[in-house]
Amino acid sequence: AAMAGWGWARAVRGLLLDVSGVLYDSGADGGVPIAGSAEAVRRIKASGLKLQLCTNETQATRASFVRKLRAMGFDVSVAEVTAPAPAACGLLKERGLRPHLLVHHDLVPEFAEIDKTNPNCVVLGDAAENFTYANLNEAFRLLIGMEKPVLISLGKGRYYKETDGLKLDVGAYMKALEYACDVQAEVVGKPAKRFFESALAELGVPPEQAIMIGDDIENDVGGAQQCGMRALQVRTGKYRPSDENHPRVKPDAYVNNLAEAVDIILRQL
Amino acid sequence: AAMAGWGWARAVRGLLLDVSGVLYDSGADGGVPIAGSAEAVRRIKASGLKLQLCTNETQATRASFVRKLRAMGFDVSVAEVTAPAPAACGLLKERGLRPHLLVHHDLVPEFAEIDKTNPNCVVLGDAAENFTYANLNEAFRLLIGMEKPVLISLGKGRYYKETDGLKLDVGAYMKALEYACDVQAEVVGKPAKRFFESALAELGVPPEQAIMIGDDIENDVGGAQQCGMRALQVRTGKYRPSDENHPRVKPDAYVNNLAEAVDIILRQL
Repeated sequence: AAMAGWGWARAVRGLLLDVSGVLYDSGADGGVPIAGSAEAVRRIKASGLKLQLCTNETQATRASFVRKLRAMGFDVSVAEVTAPAPAACGLLKERGLRPHLLVHHDLVPEFAEIDKTNPNCVVLGDAAENFTYANLNEAFRLLIGMEKPVLISLGKGRYYKETDGLKLDVGAYMKALEYACDVQAEVVGKPAKRFFESALAELGVPPEQAIMIGDDIENDVGGAQQCGMRALQVRTGKYRPSDENHPRVKPDAYVNNLAEAVDIILRQL
Repeated sequence: AAMAGWGWARAVRGLLLDVSGVLYDSGADGGVPIAGSAEAVRRIKASGLKLQLCTNETQATRASFVRKLRAMGFDVSVAEVTAPAPAACGLLKERGLRPHLLVHHDLVPEFAEIDKTNPNCVVLGDAAENFTYANLNEAFRLLIGMEKPVLISLGKGRYYKETDGLKLDVGAYMKALEYACDVQAEVVGKPAKRFFESALAELGVPPEQAIMIGDDIENDVGGAQQCGMRALQVRTGKYRPSDENHPRVKPDAYVNNLAEAVDIILRQL
């Protein structure tokens, strides 16, 4: 039954993979790989399919993120990761924007080559412990003092789970600043169309020959489908059974995990 | 010209006054009275008109707030202050709600008689330095863990000005928690209709015989008009000339300050 209706997968030439909840579960000591996922990544590469990781991770540079994944057994490189901070850097350069950063300490090096003097925009990431009253007021004052406030948000997630409990994600702080300044943030990262398009450009295949695999019904599945891709939802990570009754988004298929997705896709080829 | 069209003021029997921006400007050393306002309060009382202060102040108990006003020369008492925290206490008791408080340290005594064990709602005030990452996550976790999250917000202001700069107000943090929990906060304080109604009950006059005087076009003027009161905007406090082009709210009249409002009203009687 799981194999029925996968004919469209014969056209696939590349896969976009979400990372947290698909390759590994985040938690103490940096996280735990999801069973079968490291082997699935190896099988994708051996098959000749192209692969790109498409993540909203903003608590670390791509380099340190890749080190963590490699230590967990994943054969991936920095060039195979599409993440919001480098995408934001592209946007900042293109528009001559000089950011004030309200981001995690470990993300700051991604912006090393960006001019940050005399800021004319605010870039907001999952700043975690840097989300202090003083830092939020500072970002707010800069925005409200601009003739036309520009707020760039690295994702719009509501919350995420860590081993010590749920944490407010960047989207909640984005909403606070949006309301206070009466401005709409520009979201860089999933589900922004432009972000998926840059991941596809890295992948080197058109949307109709790519499949997105993720655990987030809206940001992964809905976002990819908006770009003309097929999209699968894994039943790992933040997946909840209620996702299968989502009012707007329906994946092209459900799979129990990445390993099953790769099994089925490779059999179509 | 300022006197034209004030015939409706002849029916007035009581005044509701906003405090910050009408009686005084907040700032270093607790604030500075606005010229003529203390004398205006005395003239209101001497005239036989009833008077009630209607404030969204949540950084202090009513008792300490009144001490501060009296030290500035205002002849007011605790019974003449309608404020969000006592209103919230009434609502909590009425509905059997046990709050987790995310409020300013100095406001906590207002909730002394409220059962706060095993919380089944969150009460959010202008917590200022208490708006830490840890405290926001704690309030969020309590809410998201409830079958039906109840978030009570003491006001919904965007920001306010202090001598050391602009500060995010409670409304911004309310929006963050609303988004993260997919819930709508219940606002206690201006512009909630119920809050104005309780101020009118304290005043002891019906809305058509009361005038609200405030500096906030939406929370003071718009809110009072929604309750059937007339409302004046003073050109002090947070008033900005652009308020006079507000897309939805038009005051019954503008006055330069409270002293001018009282001058004109008393001449109608």
